Amino acid sequence: MPGVVLTVWAPEGIPEIVAGTDLAAVIAEAVGGALEDGDILVVTSKIVSKAEGRIVAAADRERAIADETVRVVATRDTGNGVTRIVENRLGIVAAAAGVDASNTPQGTVLLLPLDPDASAHALCAAIRRRSGTRIGVIVSDTLGRPWREGQTDVAIGAAGVHVVDDFRGSTDTHGRPLTMTVACVADELAAAADLVKGKTSGCPVAVVRGLARLVGGLDLPGAASIVRPAERDLFRWGSDEAYAQGLAAARAEAARRRASE
Amino acid sequence: MPGVVLTVWAPEGIPEIVAGTDLAAVIAEAVGGALEDGDILVVTSKIVSKAEGRIVAAADRERAIADETVRVVATRDTGNGVTRIVENRLGIVAAAAGVDASNTPQGTVLLLPLDPDASAHALCAAIRRRSGTRIGVIVSDTLGRPWREGQTDVAIGAAGVHVVDDFRGSTDTHGRPLTMTVACVADELAAAADLVKGKTSGCPVAVVRGLARLVGGLDLPGAASIVRPAERDLFRWGSDEAYAQGLAAARAEAARRRASE
Repeated sequence: MPGVVLTVWAPEGIPEIVAGTDLAAVIAEAVGGALEDGDILVVTSKIVSKAEGRIVAAADRERAIADETVRVVATRDTGNGVTRIVENRLGIVAAAAGVDASNTPQGTVLLLPLDPDASAHALCAAIRRRSGTRIGVIVSDTLGRPWREGQTDVAIGAAGVHVVDDFRGSTDTHGRPLTMTVACVADELAAAADLVKGKTSGCPVAVVRGLARLVGGLDLPGAASIVRPAERDLFRWGSDEAYAQGLAAARAEAARRRASE
Repeated sequence: MPGVVLTVWAPEGIPEIVAGTDLAAVIAEAVGGALEDGDILVVTSKIVSKAEGRIVAAADRERAIADETVRVVATRDTGNGVTRIVENRLGIVAAAAGVDASNTPQGTVLLLPLDPDASAHALCAAIRRRSGTRIGVIVSDTLGRPWREGQTDVAIGAAGVHVVDDFRGSTDTHGRPLTMTVACVADELAAAADLVKGKTSGCPVAVVRGLARLVGGLDLPGAASIVRPAERDLFRWGSDEAYAQGLAAARAEAARRRASE
């Protein structure tokens, strides 16, 4: 096995997390003495939210979604209720603003952490201090995406780890510049971690070993830097919504013209 | 390291691939005797294209893109030329239809494999036969995505491996049904593999070990099943394009109304 060998596993024995749980202590204990310099911990946002008490009564689900929503990007009537794809206050575009009703106590829903990069930073600093190792932390969430079926895990928080691997300026094997390629390694790490965590197994943390080159200082940009601002996004609105906006604009224009005739 | 332990590595020693190279032989030789039942090989589409001779003169790049394009989804003038996000004949939405000018011989560009699922199937069958092991194959490509910066590797071809892990019908740790969750494990495998392959290292194949539960028969659905049909996609057009369509529709409507008055 030459070159980079990546090892990814999900420590067992992480107990149910509640508001106020010392997540760094719980994770460090579950991983045991196994942490090494350069390891990257991928932590499911759900347990970060739970530890931070980001839980509300399920009766408030609609209000919780509305509160987390900055902008409704697209809606679809699925016949089984309306799916809303929204931009939340973190700039993340997600169904139901990331408000989550699975793996939560009956009658409650979970909000995303208030500031996942800050959560990752606190967790990374505490685990580095506690373990004496230079690790990185990614906070992950499960998101759908346009054009492709199924969901994948992505990074919504990060600390002590490079979130992108920028190949611009380097050259390919034929010596030509790679102008286009910025690999979002934080999302790829979250995806790799999901393969061992699973959705139902009660393993909300994965350790990724073998990519020490991606681990760095606590001042590296967080996962907020992965979020593309809506104004620069070619898909900032759902197609139906953008079409309706165009229709409305033309009708308003026609009405103005008629009024001025 | 309890539970699932994933190991991912990129065998070295894969030579430059040219039209007609026996890819199964080259990959089997590079991996050596190391293949085990349940291993998943993630193969960069670029070398599949090269082996299949999907190469055209760079002077024909614009025509190659046009030929691969089924539908222009969105365009943007970057100041440095126009970026076109298009649906290609595989249904994949990608910049420049997936036509690739990096890591190719000077003066040439590469097209995507004609049928990446068929390529994966042939490769998987040949490597299974040659190695006597029950492995899976994913053909990967590097794609951008809406809403998030950077690119990630995804699966554009697959054989002998489950492309999704469907949790619908199973229950969460609180016994409630997981109604929404279909993990696109094929894309997550491609992402994990990219972390060890890199873009410039000349390691176009990765072996993923530890997910034998995802390996299955050669008749499993391929990566084409991951592609969401445009008519079911909320983001089937760029926002500007959909807006322009709405504007045009309303103007045509107004013109008809005026004509009939």
